[in-house]
Amino acid sequence: MKPAVDRREFRDWVSVPVRWSDMDAYHHVNNAKYVTYLEIGRIQVFRSLAPDGDWLHAAEGPVLASVTCNFRRPVQHPATIEVGTRVGKISRRSFHFEHGLFLDGTDTLVADARSIVVWINRATGEPVEISPALREALERLM
Amino acid sequence: MKPAVDRREFRDWVSVPVRWSDMDAYHHVNNAKYVTYLEIGRIQVFRSLAPDGDWLHAAEGPVLASVTCNFRRPVQHPATIEVGTRVGKISRRSFHFEHGLFLDGTDTLVADARSIVVWINRATGEPVEISPALREALERLM
Amino acid sequence: MKPAVDRREFRDWVSVPVRWSDMDAYHHVNNAKYVTYLEIGRIQVFRSLAPDGDWLHAAEGPVLASVTCNFRRPVQHPATIEVGTRVGKISRRSFHFEHGLFLDGTDTLVADARSIVVWINRATGEPVEISPALREALERLM
Amino acid sequence: MKPAVDRREFRDWVSVPVRWSDMDAYHHVNNAKYVTYLEIGRIQVFRSLAPDGDWLHAAEGPVLASVTCNFRRPVQHPATIEVGTRVGKISRRSFHFEHGLFLDGTDTLVADARSIVVWINRATGEPVEISPALREALERLM
Repeated sequence: MKPAVDRREFRDWVSVPVRWSDMDAYHHVNNAKYVTYLEIGRIQVFRSLAPDGDWLHAAEGPVLASVTCNFRRPVQHPATIEVGTRVGKISRRSFHFEHGLFLDGTDTLVADARSIVVWINRATGEPVEISPALREALERLM
Repeated sequence: MKPAVDRREFRDWVSVPVRWSDMDAYHHVNNAKYVTYLEIGRIQVFRSLAPDGDWLHAAEGPVLASVTCNFRRPVQHPATIEVGTRVGKISRRSFHFEHGLFLDGTDTLVADARSIVVWINRATGEPVEISPALREALERLM
Repeated sequence: MKPAVDRREFRDWVSVPVRWSDMDAYHHVNNAKYVTYLEIGRIQVFRSLAPDGDWLHAAEGPVLASVTCNFRRPVQHPATIEVGTRVGKISRRSFHFEHGLFLDGTDTLVADARSIVVWINRATGEPVEISPALREALERLM
Repeated sequence: MKPAVDRREFRDWVSVPVRWSDMDAYHHVNNAKYVTYLEIGRIQVFRSLAPDGDWLHAAEGPVLASVTCNFRRPVQHPATIEVGTRVGKISRRSFHFEHGLFLDGTDTLVADARSIVVWINRATGEPVEISPALREALERLM
Protein backbone atom coordinates (compact mmCIF):
# COMPACT_ATOMS: atom_id res chain seq x y z
CA MET A 1 0.00 0.00 0.00
CA LYS A 2 1.45 3.33 -1.01
CA PRO A 3 1.43 5.99 1.67
CA ALA A 4 -0.35 9.20 0.79
CA VAL A 5 2.71 11.39 0.41
CA ASP A 6 1.58 14.91 -0.35
CA ARG A 7 3.76 17.27 -2.36
CA ARG A 8 2.64 20.17 -0.20
CA GLU A 9 4.50 18.71 2.79
CA PHE A 10 7.91 19.50 1.35
CA ARG A 11 9.71 22.79 1.91
CA ASP A 12 12.66 22.64 -0.48
CA TRP A 13 12.69 21.46 -4.08
CA VAL A 14 15.25 20.65 -6.71
CA SER A 15 14.69 19.33 -10.24
CA VAL A 16 16.92 16.50 -11.39
CA PRO A 17 16.99 15.53 -15.07
CA VAL A 18 17.37 11.77 -15.34
CA ARG A 19 20.49 10.86 -17.29
CA TRP A 20 20.20 8.03 -19.79
CA SER A 21 23.05 6.24 -18.01
CA ASP A 22 21.13 6.38 -14.71
CA MET A 23 19.22 3.41 -16.11
CA ASP A 24 20.48 -0.12 -15.63
CA ALA A 25 19.94 -3.32 -17.61
CA TYR A 26 16.27 -3.36 -16.53
CA HIS A 27 15.82 -0.18 -18.58
CA HIS A 28 14.79 1.60 -15.37
CA VAL A 29 16.63 4.06 -13.18
CA ASN A 30 18.94 2.04 -10.92
CA ASN A 31 18.10 1.99 -7.20
CA ALA A 32 21.39 3.60 -6.17
CA LYS A 33 20.63 6.59 -8.40
CA TYR A 34 17.54 7.38 -6.33
CA VAL A 35 19.95 7.67 -3.41
CA THR A 36 22.01 10.12 -5.46
CA TYR A 37 18.85 12.13 -6.15
CA LEU A 38 18.23 12.30 -2.38
CA GLU A 39 21.76 13.60 -1.94
CA ILE A 40 21.10 16.34 -4.49
CA GLY A 41 18.14 17.39 -2.31
CA ARG A 42 20.15 17.32 0.91
CA ILE A 43 23.04 19.27 -0.55
CA GLN A 44 20.79 22.04 -1.79
CA VAL A 45 19.57 22.39 1.81
CA PHE A 46 23.10 22.20 3.27
CA ARG A 47 24.22 24.98 0.96
CA SER A 48 21.30 27.15 2.05
CA LEU A 49 22.27 26.55 5.70
CA ALA A 50 25.93 27.57 5.31
CA PRO A 51 26.58 31.33 5.56
CA ASP A 52 28.32 31.52 2.19
CA GLY A 53 27.14 28.23 0.75
CA ASP A 54 30.47 26.59 1.56
CA TRP A 55 29.01 23.79 3.66
CA LEU A 56 31.85 21.42 2.75
CA HIS A 57 34.57 23.44 4.49
CA ALA A 58 32.67 24.82 7.48
CA ALA A 59 34.08 23.85 10.90
CA GLU A 60 30.90 21.94 11.72
CA GLY A 61 28.74 20.12 9.27
CA PRO A 62 26.61 17.17 8.30
CA VAL A 63 27.43 13.48 8.08
CA LEU A 64 24.91 11.02 6.72
CA ALA A 65 24.22 8.34 9.33
CA SER A 66 21.44 6.42 7.64
CA VAL A 67 19.20 6.44 4.62
CA THR A 68 15.97 4.57 3.91
CA CYS A 69 14.44 4.71 0.45
CA ASN A 70 11.11 3.17 -0.54
CA PHE A 71 10.87 2.60 -4.28
CA ARG A 72 7.31 3.29 -5.43
CA ARG A 73 7.55 3.30 -9.22
CA PRO A 74 10.11 2.54 -11.90
CA VAL A 75 11.36 5.52 -13.90
CA GLN A 76 12.62 5.59 -17.48
CA HIS A 77 14.64 8.19 -19.31
CA PRO A 78 13.58 10.74 -20.51
CA ALA A 79 12.19 12.09 -17.26
CA THR A 80 12.78 14.81 -14.73
CA ILE A 81 12.48 14.06 -11.03
CA GLU A 82 11.45 16.70 -8.54
CA VAL A 83 13.09 16.04 -5.19
CA GLY A 84 11.15 17.49 -2.29
CA THR A 85 12.80 17.73 1.12
CA ARG A 86 11.63 18.75 4.55
CA VAL A 87 13.09 18.46 8.03
CA GLY A 88 11.42 15.89 10.27
CA LYS A 89 12.55 15.37 13.84
CA ILE A 90 15.37 17.52 15.29
CA SER A 91 17.38 15.97 18.11
CA ARG A 92 20.35 17.34 20.06
CA ARG A 93 23.04 16.37 17.60
CA SER A 94 21.12 15.04 14.63
CA PHE A 95 18.00 15.53 12.57
CA HIS A 96 15.91 13.77 9.97
CA PHE A 97 15.17 14.73 6.40
CA GLU A 98 12.03 13.40 4.76
CA HIS A 99 12.13 13.26 0.97
CA GLY A 100 9.50 12.79 -1.72
CA LEU A 101 10.53 12.12 -5.33
CA PHE A 102 7.89 12.99 -7.91
CA LEU A 103 7.64 12.95 -11.66
CA ASP A 104 8.09 16.49 -12.86
CA GLY A 105 4.93 18.57 -12.64
CA THR A 106 2.77 15.73 -11.32
CA ASP A 107 1.65 14.17 -8.05
CA THR A 108 3.14 10.84 -9.14
CA LEU A 109 5.36 9.64 -6.33
CA VAL A 110 8.35 7.58 -7.46
CA ALA A 111 10.00 7.21 -4.06
CA ASP A 112 9.84 8.45 -0.52
CA ALA A 113 12.78 8.41 1.82
CA ARG A 114 14.32 9.41 5.10
CA SER A 115 17.89 10.50 5.79
CA ILE A 116 19.36 10.78 9.27
CA VAL A 117 22.03 13.46 9.49
CA VAL A 118 24.47 13.88 12.38
CA TRP A 119 26.14 17.23 12.96
CA ILE A 120 29.87 16.87 13.55
CA ASN A 121 32.99 18.85 14.22
CA ARG A 122 35.02 18.32 11.05
CA ALA A 123 38.36 18.40 12.89
CA THR A 124 37.50 15.79 15.50
CA GLY A 125 34.84 13.85 13.64
CA GLU A 126 32.74 13.92 16.82
CA PRO A 127 29.03 14.81 16.95
CA VAL A 128 28.33 18.30 18.26
CA GLU A 129 25.20 20.04 19.46
CA ILE A 130 23.00 21.69 16.91
CA SER A 131 23.36 25.42 17.55
CA PRO A 132 20.30 27.59 18.19
CA ALA A 133 20.81 29.33 14.84
CA LEU A 134 20.97 26.03 12.96
CA ARG A 135 17.95 24.72 14.85
CA GLU A 136 15.99 27.78 13.86
CA ALA A 137 16.96 27.37 10.21
CA LEU A 138 15.99 23.69 10.33
CA GLU A 139 12.66 24.50 11.95
CA ARG A 140 11.78 26.70 9.02
CA LEU A 141 12.10 23.56 6.84
CA MET A 142 9.77 21.41 8.94
CA MET B 1 25.73 3.10 19.45
CA LYS B 2 26.92 0.57 16.94
CA PRO B 3 25.03 -2.67 16.92
CA ALA B 4 27.07 -5.80 17.41
CA VAL B 5 26.89 -7.11 13.88
CA ASP B 6 28.69 -10.42 13.72
CA ARG B 7 30.33 -11.62 10.52
CA ARG B 8 29.30 -15.18 11.30
CA GLU B 9 25.64 -14.28 10.79
CA PHE B 10 26.02 -13.90 7.03
CA ARG B 11 25.58 -16.76 4.58
CA ASP B 12 26.77 -15.36 1.28
CA TRP B 13 29.84 -13.22 0.63
CA VAL B 14 31.23 -11.19 -2.21
CA SER B 15 34.39 -9.08 -2.26
CA VAL B 16 34.13 -5.62 -3.81
CA PRO B 17 37.29 -3.66 -4.59
CA VAL B 18 36.63 0.02 -3.95
CA ARG B 19 37.23 2.06 -7.09
CA TRP B 20 39.03 5.36 -6.69
CA SER B 21 36.09 7.12 -8.33
CA ASP B 22 33.70 5.67 -5.72
CA MET B 23 35.01 8.45 -3.50
CA ASP B 24 33.44 11.88 -3.53
CA ALA B 25 34.77 15.32 -2.65
CA TYR B 26 34.99 14.31 1.02
CA HIS B 27 37.67 11.80 -0.02
CA HIS B 28 35.41 9.03 1.29
CA VAL B 29 33.31 6.47 -0.52
CA ASN B 30 30.05 8.20 -1.47
CA ASN B 31 26.90 7.02 0.31
CA ALA B 32 25.19 5.89 -2.89
CA LYS B 33 28.12 3.57 -3.64
CA TYR B 34 27.39 1.60 -0.47
CA VAL B 35 23.96 1.01 -2.00
CA THR B 36 25.67 -0.28 -5.13
CA TYR B 37 27.77 -2.62 -2.97
CA LEU B 38 24.54 -3.97 -1.44
CA GLU B 39 23.24 -4.58 -4.95
CA ILE B 40 26.36 -6.57 -5.78
CA GLY B 41 25.56 -8.78 -2.78
CA ARG B 42 21.91 -9.21 -3.75
CA ILE B 43 22.70 -10.04 -7.35
CA GLN B 44 25.16 -12.74 -6.40
CA VAL B 45 22.32 -14.33 -4.42
CA PHE B 46 19.77 -13.84 -7.23
CA ARG B 47 22.10 -15.56 -9.67
CA SER B 48 22.50 -18.50 -7.30
CA LEU B 49 18.70 -18.78 -7.05
CA ALA B 50 18.07 -18.87 -10.82
CA PRO B 51 18.40 -22.32 -12.40
CA ASP B 52 20.97 -21.17 -14.95
CA GLY B 53 22.02 -17.95 -13.32
CA ASP B 54 19.83 -15.95 -15.70
CA TRP B 55 17.80 -14.22 -13.01
CA LEU B 56 17.20 -11.18 -15.19
CA HIS B 57 15.12 -12.98 -17.81
CA ALA B 58 13.27 -15.51 -15.67
CA ALA B 59 9.45 -15.29 -15.77
CA GLU B 60 9.36 -14.38 -12.10
CA GLY B 61 11.96 -12.44 -10.22
CA PRO B 62 12.94 -9.83 -7.69
CA VAL B 63 12.12 -6.15 -7.46
CA LEU B 64 13.68 -3.98 -4.81
CA ALA B 65 10.95 -2.35 -2.71
CA SER B 66 13.02 -0.66 -0.06
CA VAL B 67 16.56 -0.28 1.20
CA THR B 68 17.90 1.01 4.51
CA CYS B 69 21.61 1.55 4.96
CA ASN B 70 23.31 2.59 8.20
CA PHE B 71 26.72 4.12 7.58
CA ARG B 72 29.10 3.08 10.37
CA ARG B 73 32.50 4.17 9.13
CA PRO B 74 33.96 6.18 6.26
CA VAL B 75 36.02 4.23 3.74
CA GLN B 76 38.91 5.44 1.60
CA HIS B 77 40.47 3.94 -1.49
CA PRO B 78 42.44 1.67 -1.58
CA ALA B 79 40.18 -0.80 0.21
CA THR B 80 38.22 -3.95 -0.43
CA ILE B 81 34.76 -4.36 1.06
CA GLU B 82 33.35 -7.75 1.92
CA VAL B 83 29.59 -7.74 1.48
CA GLY B 84 27.86 -10.32 3.64
CA THR B 85 24.22 -11.18 2.98
CA ARG B 86 21.66 -13.34 4.68
CA VAL B 87 17.92 -13.76 4.32
CA GLY B 88 15.88 -12.33 7.20
CA LYS B 89 12.10 -12.61 7.25
CA ILE B 90 10.29 -14.47 4.44
CA SER B 91 6.71 -13.38 3.76
CA ARG B 92 4.22 -14.62 1.15
CA ARG B 93 5.41 -12.46 -1.71
CA SER B 94 8.48 -10.76 -0.35
CA PHE B 95 11.51 -11.29 1.84
CA HIS B 96 14.24 -9.33 3.58
CA PHE B 97 17.96 -9.39 3.05
CA GLU B 98 20.24 -8.31 5.87
CA HIS B 99 23.67 -7.07 4.81
CA GLY B 100 26.91 -6.41 6.63
CA LEU B 101 29.76 -4.56 4.92
CA PHE B 102 33.18 -5.19 6.43
CA LEU B 103 36.71 -4.12 5.68
CA ASP B 104 38.39 -7.02 3.94
CA GLY B 105 39.65 -9.68 6.31
CA THR B 106 38.59 -7.84 9.47
CA ASP B 107 35.61 -7.52 11.81
CA THR B 108 35.44 -3.79 11.08
CA LEU B 109 31.88 -3.00 10.12
CA VAL B 110 31.51 -0.15 7.64
CA ALA B 111 27.76 -0.42 7.12
CA ASP B 112 24.79 -2.62 7.87
CA ALA B 113 21.66 -2.64 5.80
CA ARG B 114 18.33 -4.19 4.99
CA SER B 115 16.76 -4.68 1.55
CA ILE B 116 13.12 -5.62 1.05
CA VAL B 117 12.59 -7.64 -2.10
CA VAL B 118 9.21 -8.36 -3.71
CA TRP B 119 8.82 -11.32 -6.04
CA ILE B 120 6.97 -10.38 -9.21
CA ASN B 121 5.73 -11.76 -12.46
CA ARG B 122 7.87 -9.95 -15.03
CA ALA B 123 5.10 -9.87 -17.64
CA THR B 124 2.43 -8.33 -15.41
CA GLY B 125 4.64 -6.53 -12.90
CA GLU B 126 2.40 -7.93 -10.13
CA PRO B 127 3.68 -9.57 -6.95
CA VAL B 128 3.43 -13.36 -6.93
CA GLU B 129 3.72 -15.98 -4.24
CA ILE B 130 7.15 -17.26 -3.38
CA SER B 131 7.21 -20.86 -4.58
CA PRO B 132 8.09 -23.71 -2.20
CA ALA B 133 11.35 -24.28 -4.08
CA LEU B 134 12.35 -20.63 -3.78
CA ARG B 135 11.32 -20.57 -0.11
CA GLU B 136 13.52 -23.57 0.56
CA ALA B 137 16.47 -21.94 -1.20
CA LEU B 138 15.93 -18.71 0.78
CA GLU B 139 15.69 -20.61 4.06
CA ARG B 140 19.14 -22.02 3.45
CA LEU B 141 20.41 -18.41 3.49
CA MET B 142 18.79 -17.46 6.80
CA MET C 1 47.60 25.25 -26.44
CA LYS C 2 43.85 25.39 -26.30
CA PRO C 3 42.11 25.28 -29.64
CA ALA C 4 39.75 28.11 -30.39
CA VAL C 5 36.50 26.22 -30.02
CA ASP C 6 33.66 28.53 -30.87
CA ARG C 7 30.22 28.02 -29.35
CA ARG C 8 28.59 29.07 -32.62
CA GLU C 9 29.89 25.93 -34.34
CA PHE C 10 27.50 23.65 -32.45
CA ARG C 11 24.02 22.81 -33.68
CA ASP C 12 22.42 21.01 -30.77
CA TRP C 13 22.58 21.93 -27.10
CA VAL C 14 21.66 20.34 -23.81
CA SER C 15 22.18 21.72 -20.30
CA VAL C 16 23.56 19.32 -17.70
CA PRO C 17 23.48 20.28 -14.02
CA VAL C 18 26.61 18.95 -12.35
CA ARG C 19 25.72 16.62 -9.49
CA TRP C 20 27.74 16.94 -6.31
CA SER C 21 28.65 13.25 -6.57
CA ASP C 22 30.09 13.82 -10.06
CA MET C 23 33.11 15.15 -8.22
CA ASP C 24 35.87 12.83 -7.07
CA ALA C 25 38.44 13.07 -4.29
CA TYR C 26 40.17 15.95 -6.14
CA HIS C 27 37.01 17.99 -5.54
CA HIS C 28 36.62 18.27 -9.33
CA VAL C 29 34.26 16.58 -11.72
CA ASN C 30 35.71 13.14 -12.47
CA ASN C 31 36.99 12.56 -16.02
CA ALA C 32 34.52 9.73 -16.71
CA LYS C 33 31.61 12.07 -15.95
CA TYR C 34 32.63 14.30 -18.86
CA VAL C 35 32.15 11.20 -21.01
CA THR C 36 28.66 10.82 -19.53
CA TYR C 37 27.95 14.46 -20.39
CA LEU C 38 28.97 13.71 -24.00
CA GLU C 39 26.55 10.80 -23.99
CA ILE C 40 23.75 13.09 -22.85
CA GLY C 41 24.49 15.25 -25.90
CA ARG C 42 24.56 12.29 -28.30
CA ILE C 43 21.34 10.83 -26.97
CA GLN C 44 19.47 14.08 -27.38
CA VAL C 45 20.50 13.97 -31.06
CA PHE C 46 19.66 10.25 -31.43
CA ARG C 47 16.18 10.90 -30.07
CA SER C 48 15.66 13.73 -32.54
CA LEU C 49 16.70 11.39 -35.37
CA ALA C 50 14.25 8.57 -34.48
CA PRO C 51 10.73 9.04 -35.88
CA ASP C 52 9.09 8.73 -32.48
CA GLY C 53 12.12 9.34 -30.29
CA ASP C 54 12.48 5.61 -29.63
CA TRP C 55 16.04 5.34 -30.89
CA LEU C 56 16.82 2.47 -28.54
CA HIS C 57 14.38 0.01 -30.15
CA ALA C 58 14.63 1.02 -33.82
CA ALA C 59 15.77 -1.74 -36.20
CA GLU C 60 18.90 0.23 -37.03
CA GLY C 61 20.76 2.51 -34.73
CA PRO C 62 23.98 3.86 -33.32
CA VAL C 63 26.88 2.15 -31.60
CA LEU C 64 29.72 4.15 -30.12
CA ALA C 65 33.00 3.05 -31.67
CA SER C 66 35.38 5.56 -30.16
CA VAL C 67 35.49 8.64 -28.00
CA THR C 68 38.24 11.22 -27.48
CA CYS C 69 37.87 13.85 -24.79
CA ASN C 70 40.30 16.71 -24.16
CA PHE C 71 39.97 18.10 -20.64
CA ARG C 72 40.47 21.86 -20.72
CA ARG C 73 39.43 23.02 -17.26
CA PRO C 74 38.46 21.48 -13.93
CA VAL C 75 34.85 21.95 -12.88
CA GLN C 76 33.41 22.13 -9.37
CA HIS C 77 29.87 21.75 -8.15
CA PRO C 78 27.71 23.84 -8.24
CA ALA C 79 27.86 24.32 -12.01
CA THR C 80 25.85 23.68 -15.12
CA ILE C 81 27.54 22.42 -18.26
CA GLU C 82 26.20 23.21 -21.69
CA VAL C 83 26.96 20.36 -24.06
CA GLY C 84 27.13 21.48 -27.68
CA THR C 85 27.13 18.86 -30.43
CA ARG C 86 27.50 18.98 -34.19
CA VAL C 87 28.03 16.35 -36.84
CA GLY C 88 31.54 16.27 -38.35
CA LYS C 89 32.43 13.84 -41.12
CA ILE C 90 29.77 11.46 -42.51
CA SER C 91 31.05 8.21 -44.00
CA ARG C 92 29.15 5.28 -45.52
CA ARG C 93 28.33 3.49 -42.27
CA SER C 94 29.56 5.86 -39.60
CA PHE C 95 29.84 9.51 -38.69
CA HIS C 96 31.58 11.79 -36.22
CA PHE C 97 30.14 14.01 -33.55
CA GLU C 98 32.15 16.98 -32.35
CA HIS C 99 31.31 18.21 -28.86
CA GLY C 100 32.09 21.36 -26.91
CA LEU C 101 31.39 21.55 -23.17
CA PHE C 102 31.04 25.07 -21.82
CA LEU C 103 30.27 26.62 -18.47
CA ASP C 104 26.64 27.68 -18.55
CA GLY C 105 26.08 31.02 -20.25
CA THR C 106 29.77 31.65 -20.96
CA ASP C 107 32.40 30.99 -23.62
CA THR C 108 34.50 29.09 -21.09
CA LEU C 109 35.39 25.77 -22.65
CA VAL C 110 35.77 22.93 -20.16
CA ALA C 111 36.28 20.12 -22.68
CA ASP C 112 36.10 19.36 -26.37
CA ALA C 113 35.57 15.91 -27.74
CA ARG C 114 34.89 13.66 -30.68
CA SER C 115 32.68 10.57 -30.80
CA ILE C 116 32.72 8.09 -33.68
CA VAL C 117 29.35 6.43 -34.19
CA VAL C 118 28.74 3.35 -36.34
CA TRP C 119 25.25 2.65 -37.65
CA ILE C 120 24.26 -0.97 -37.14
CA ASN C 121 21.46 -3.41 -37.68
CA ARG C 122 20.35 -4.23 -34.14
CA ALA C 123 19.43 -7.83 -34.98
CA THR C 124 22.72 -8.76 -36.62
CA GLY C 125 25.03 -6.30 -34.91
CA GLU C 126 26.56 -5.56 -38.32
CA PRO C 127 27.25 -2.07 -39.68
CA VAL C 128 24.74 -0.88 -42.27
CA GLU C 129 24.70 1.97 -44.73
CA ILE C 130 23.46 5.32 -43.57
CA SER C 131 20.17 5.86 -45.39
CA PRO C 132 19.59 9.00 -47.50
CA ALA C 133 17.02 10.22 -44.95
CA LEU C 134 19.44 9.80 -42.06
CA ARG C 135 22.24 11.42 -44.04
CA GLU C 136 20.05 14.41 -44.74
CA ALA C 137 19.14 14.73 -41.05
CA LEU C 138 22.81 14.48 -40.08
CA GLU C 139 23.81 17.08 -42.65
CA ARG C 140 21.48 19.55 -41.02
CA LEU C 141 23.60 19.14 -37.86
CA MET C 142 26.95 19.84 -39.54
CA MET D 1 39.63 -3.44 -38.57
CA LYS D 2 40.77 -4.34 -35.12
CA PRO D 3 44.39 -3.59 -34.38
CA ALA D 4 46.47 -6.49 -33.20
CA VAL D 5 46.82 -5.45 -29.59
CA ASP D 6 49.02 -7.96 -27.83
CA ARG D 7 48.66 -8.61 -24.12
CA ARG D 8 52.41 -9.00 -23.80
CA GLU D 9 52.91 -5.30 -24.57
CA PHE D 10 51.51 -4.20 -21.23
CA ARG D 11 53.62 -3.76 -18.11
CA ASP D 12 51.07 -3.23 -15.35
CA TRP D 13 47.83 -5.08 -14.78
CA VAL D 14 44.77 -4.73 -12.59
CA SER D 15 41.66 -6.91 -12.53
CA VAL D 16 38.32 -5.13 -12.42
CA PRO D 17 35.16 -7.09 -11.63
CA VAL D 18 32.31 -5.65 -13.69
CA ARG D 19 29.49 -4.46 -11.44
CA TRP D 20 25.96 -5.23 -12.54
CA SER D 21 25.15 -1.53 -12.42
CA ASP D 22 28.00 -0.77 -14.83
CA MET D 23 25.58 -1.93 -17.49
CA ASP D 24 23.14 0.48 -19.07
CA ALA D 25 19.77 0.01 -20.77
CA TYR D 26 21.49 -1.81 -23.67
CA HIS D 27 22.41 -4.54 -21.18
CA HIS D 28 26.08 -3.82 -21.92
CA VAL D 29 28.72 -2.04 -19.90
CA ASN D 30 28.21 1.68 -20.47
CA ASN D 31 30.93 3.50 -22.43
CA ALA D 32 31.80 5.84 -19.55
CA LYS D 33 32.56 2.84 -17.34
CA TYR D 34 35.36 1.78 -19.67
CA VAL D 35 36.85 5.19 -18.93
CA THR D 36 36.55 4.42 -15.22
CA TYR D 37 38.35 1.11 -15.82
CA LEU D 38 41.19 3.03 -17.51
CA GLU D 39 41.36 5.26 -14.45
CA ILE D 40 41.72 2.21 -12.22
CA GLY D 41 44.72 1.21 -14.35
CA ARG D 42 46.30 4.66 -14.20
CA ILE D 43 45.83 5.01 -10.47
CA GLN D 44 47.51 1.71 -9.77
CA VAL D 45 50.53 3.06 -11.68
CA PHE D 46 50.39 6.46 -9.94
CA ARG D 47 50.41 4.77 -6.56
CA SER D 48 53.45 2.70 -7.54
CA LEU D 49 55.23 5.90 -8.61
CA ALA D 50 54.64 7.79 -5.33
CA PRO D 51 57.20 7.07 -2.59
CA ASP D 52 54.56 6.04 -0.05
CA GLY D 53 51.65 5.47 -2.43
CA ASP D 54 50.17 8.85 -1.52
CA TRP D 55 50.08 10.15 -5.06
CA LEU D 56 47.07 12.38 -4.34
CA HIS D 57 48.85 14.62 -1.83
CA ALA D 58 52.34 14.76 -3.34
CA ALA D 59 53.60 18.24 -4.25
CA GLU D 60 53.73 17.28 -7.91
CA GLY D 61 51.45 14.88 -9.65
CA PRO D 62 49.37 13.87 -12.64
CA VAL D 63 46.49 15.59 -14.35
CA LEU D 64 44.59 13.87 -17.14
CA ALA D 65 44.72 16.02 -20.27
CA SER D 66 43.05 13.73 -22.76
CA VAL D 67 41.66 10.25 -23.16
CA THR D 68 40.80 8.25 -26.29
CA CYS D 69 38.98 4.94 -25.96
CA ASN D 70 38.20 2.58 -28.84
CA PHE D 71 35.35 0.23 -27.99
CA ARG D 72 36.03 -3.17 -29.54
CA ARG D 73 33.43 -5.45 -27.98
CA PRO D 74 30.37 -5.14 -25.76
CA VAL D 75 30.69 -6.62 -22.27
CA GLN D 76 27.98 -8.07 -20.06
CA HIS D 77 27.96 -8.78 -16.36
CA PRO D 78 29.17 -11.17 -15.01
CA ALA D 79 32.69 -10.53 -16.28
CA THR D 80 36.08 -9.48 -15.07
CA ILE D 81 38.16 -7.06 -17.12
CA GLU D 82 41.92 -7.09 -17.02
CA VAL D 83 43.27 -3.60 -17.56
CA GLY D 84 46.78 -3.59 -19.01
CA THR D 85 48.77 -0.35 -19.00
CA ARG D 86 52.11 0.68 -20.38
CA VAL D 87 53.86 4.00 -20.84
CA GLY D 88 54.09 5.20 -24.45
CA LYS D 89 55.82 8.45 -25.32
CA ILE D 90 57.48 10.52 -22.56
CA SER D 91 57.77 14.25 -23.23
CA ARG D 92 59.22 17.04 -21.06
CA ARG D 93 56.11 17.64 -18.94
CA SER D 94 53.74 14.92 -20.01
CA PHE D 95 53.56 11.29 -21.06
CA HIS D 96 51.19 8.83 -22.65
CA PHE D 97 49.64 5.69 -21.23
CA GLU D 98 48.50 2.98 -23.61
CA HIS D 99 45.80 0.66 -22.25
CA GLY D 100 44.39 -2.66 -23.33
CA LEU D 101 41.21 -4.04 -21.75
CA PHE D 102 40.82 -7.81 -22.03
CA LEU D 103 38.32 -10.36 -20.86
CA ASP D 104 39.81 -12.08 -17.84
CA GLY D 105 42.25 -14.83 -18.72
CA THR D 106 41.80 -14.46 -22.50
CA ASP D 107 43.26 -12.57 -25.45
CA THR D 108 39.84 -11.08 -26.16
CA LEU D 109 40.31 -7.33 -26.46
CA VAL D 110 37.31 -5.29 -25.34
CA ALA D 111 38.87 -1.85 -25.72
CA ASP D 112 42.17 -0.12 -26.32
CA ALA D 113 42.89 3.39 -25.21
CA ARG D 114 45.37 6.17 -24.74
CA SER D 115 45.57 8.65 -21.87
CA ILE D 116 47.71 11.80 -21.97
CA VAL D 117 48.93 12.81 -18.53
CA VAL D 118 50.49 16.17 -17.68
CA TRP D 119 52.69 16.49 -14.61
CA ILE D 120 51.82 19.54 -12.54
CA ASN D 121 52.75 21.40 -9.41
CA ARG D 122 49.68 20.96 -7.21
CA ALA D 123 50.05 24.36 -5.57
CA THR D 124 50.25 26.39 -8.79
CA GLY D 125 48.43 24.05 -11.13
CA GLU D 126 51.21 24.64 -13.68
CA PRO D 127 52.95 21.89 -15.67
CA VAL D 128 56.40 21.00 -14.39
CA GLU D 129 59.27 19.01 -15.84
CA ILE D 130 59.31 15.30 -15.31
CA SER D 131 62.18 14.62 -12.92
CA PRO D 132 64.95 12.16 -13.84
CA ALA D 133 63.71 9.77 -11.13
CA LEU D 134 60.14 9.85 -12.48
CA ARG D 135 61.39 9.46 -16.04
CA GLU D 136 63.36 6.40 -15.04
CA ALA D 137 60.33 4.89 -13.32
CA LEU D 138 58.17 5.60 -16.37
CA GLU D 139 60.76 4.08 -18.71
CA ARG D 140 60.52 0.82 -16.80
CA LEU D 141 56.83 0.75 -17.80
CA MET D 142 57.41 1.26 -21.54
